[in-house]
Amino acid sequence: MPRLAQDESQPSALGTQRSFQWEPTIAWAGDLPGSVRLIDQTLLPGTYKVITCRTLPPLREAIQRLRVRGAPALGAAAALGVVLGLQRTKARTWPAFEKELARVAEAIGSARPTAVNLFWGLDRMRRAARRHRALPVDQILGSLLNEARAVLEEDRQVCRRMAAFGASLLSDGSRILTHCNTGALAAVDYGTALGAVFRAAEEGKRVSVIADETRPLLQGARLTCWELARAGIPATLICDNTAAQVMREGRVDLVLVGADRIAANGDTANKIGTYGVAVLAKAHRIPFYVVAPVSTIDSAAATGAAIPIEQRRPEEVTCLPRPIPHASARRRQAHPGGRPIAPEGTRVYNPAFDVTPADLIAGIVTDQGILRPPYAAAIKRLMRTSRAR
Amino acid sequence: MPRLAQDESQPSALGTQRSFQWEPTIAWAGDLPGSVRLIDQTLLPGTYKVITCRTLPPLREAIQRLRVRGAPALGAAAALGVVLGLQRTKARTWPAFEKELARVAEAIGSARPTAVNLFWGLDRMRRAARRHRALPVDQILGSLLNEARAVLEEDRQVCRRMAAFGASLLSDGSRILTHCNTGALAAVDYGTALGAVFRAAEEGKRVSVIADETRPLLQGARLTCWELARAGIPATLICDNTAAQVMREGRVDLVLVGADRIAANGDTANKIGTYGVAVLAKAHRIPFYVVAPVSTIDSAAATGAAIPIEQRRPEEVTCLPRPIPHASARRRQAHPGGRPIAPEGTRVYNPAFDVTPADLIAGIVTDQGILRPPYAAAIKRLMRTSRAR
Repeated sequence: MPRLAQDESQPSALGTQRSFQWEPTIAWAGDLPGSVRLIDQTLLPGTYKVITCRTLPPLREAIQRLRVRGAPALGAAAALGVVLGLQRTKARTWPAFEKELARVAEAIGSARPTAVNLFWGLDRMRRAARRHRALPVDQILGSLLNEARAVLEEDRQVCRRMAAFGASLLSDGSRILTHCNTGALAAVDYGTALGAVFRAAEEGKRVSVIADETRPLLQGARLTCWELARAGIPATLICDNTAAQVMREGRVDLVLVGADRIAANGDTANKIGTYGVAVLAKAHRIPFYVVAPVSTIDSAAATGAAIPIEQRRPEEVTCLPRPIPHASARRRQAHPGGRPIAPEGTRVYNPAFDVTPADLIAGIVTDQGILRPPYAAAIKRLMRTSRAR
Repeated sequence: MPRLAQDESQPSALGTQRSFQWEPTIAWAGDLPGSVRLIDQTLLPGTYKVITCRTLPPLREAIQRLRVRGAPALGAAAALGVVLGLQRTKARTWPAFEKELARVAEAIGSARPTAVNLFWGLDRMRRAARRHRALPVDQILGSLLNEARAVLEEDRQVCRRMAAFGASLLSDGSRILTHCNTGALAAVDYGTALGAVFRAAEEGKRVSVIADETRPLLQGARLTCWELARAGIPATLICDNTAAQVMREGRVDLVLVGADRIAANGDTANKIGTYGVAVLAKAHRIPFYVVAPVSTIDSAAATGAAIPIEQRRPEEVTCLPRPIPHASARRRQAHPGGRPIAPEGTRVYNPAFDVTPADLIAGIVTDQGILRPPYAAAIKRLMRTSRAR
């Protein structure tokens, strides 16, 4: 169960340093052979359950059914999945091992073919295996476990660094509006935009959050509110369409959101609804910040126009989400999202993301520092520095 | 079943005059004793069913369970309910009749104590009864039925006039974004903002609508999409948070919304989310219109600040709507909205309305014409003219 390092019987007050230490979203347990442990996010917020996958099929199912989701968490799942799928291999030569690796990677990638982070994780594992191809299979496997652990540890470190920069924007009493889920559940630990909030709370700042519910899949209501409750940080849930009103009533000091991809000029793709929040924040003179690792910056995309927008299934909108695993498979197929709330045949526009133009963004908080406009120059400088390291 | 006067096998084209004639949302059937027929809106969009209430208790239940909703429709329900509750009265004197009228009015008003239109309807019926107190009871009853029919007919006429003015804003090809349900289901027939769309289609203009789903109760998804499908008008459903994106993509020519109350300076209270849409429309240079009868103008409220904002139950947000009548009463009480989607104890901010400041409104379409800024002067002029009639 999640726990707070701080004694929960003590009231939270400014100056009370605390440190959040909770079960990671996804982790490797044991040595070799070992298992993957992950929080089943489809049961949240109703039930908190950590499931253990000792072989690849249950992990694959967990990816497919969104028991684990969020870009960084999926990269970690892919890396761990490779070890899980190969740890009992009978292969004793590199060609045989490589063939099995290809089969395992295919099984993982096909679980969610549109999740780019899965493929990033698989690619990294493939390269690690090739670097060690001259070693005996047992030692290749050991190297792969090390590589997967490095993926997870790097994600933790990146999130912690980003959170420290992000927390510098928050003062005692800051009231943050956020969209979607950008917390520990989206990553291995801590998260991006919500990480900054956790860090501020750890520093003893009394911060509070207004969470957009984030239709259609309600990650804000289901996951962000759960994470904030777990951390003991005051949170208020609103319907997405209420963001303008809370801003007008002076209830928001700043907006923090995550990012799926950032173009070379600072234009930022993120969960649908983010752009609207940015326009509303500007109209109410509320600073709007993006929190995302440097790895999110895609220098190949000159502007947001170069970022393709994924269109998703209409059923996400026309059927209320019902991520309950005990519905029969046939019923799930008929109503993938649950009970229909719009007439049959209703046309739906359901883009997964939108793009917030750079001129609406007050700053981009990365693990290497906070970028300020003009972003084209700031990003160019950052990329030069990152490469130089 | 709903039907189109136009032959549905013919493709709709500019210049094709058609006329929507469908079952009214609520109506009196027969003479005295008669019955009230209404569309059960809790079953929409899944099932279209007209129910018949021969006595007051089932009508009261229909009001309470939102089988009939929408400000004008509730005014009509109250008026018809008075006739229904009194038509088999044993009273033979005015004092006895008046006592029964009070009992009936109390039963109707207590079904939804916050719905002002119920009380408006009851008040009108009470005054009509008093005007005819000298007549025999049978004739008082006849006068009440006439009065109730007048309430319904006036609502129809007001909506039709408003729709004609509203349709003058729409051209062939106009793409309208709307919020909540402002169609025939919210009134006796035709509706307010959606009425303008119906009228434009009747005039042969090929218009299309983008409908905000309108959380928390999803009237846009459930009712607006159903009405537009019934009318054969192309509609696209979006999550509320997608409005900014469709505007940015140039998919919206103008916004039409309804109103719950309009202050003397033009500030307009309407379903939560309306204000955000107005800010977004301004940022994208899209004209934003309010469509509402003159009776919605509250000259006693100088500005929007004088309009109280009703706060509603958190369960509307934290539990997915499940307006299905066959859940047991005990279960409904535990989860009034259905399945919980946020952790227990989550704090929620759920205002029913927001106020759009007059300076974001391009025009207010009433049954007496289209008001343009400055609204304080336009409203004062209109009120003088209305009184003069």
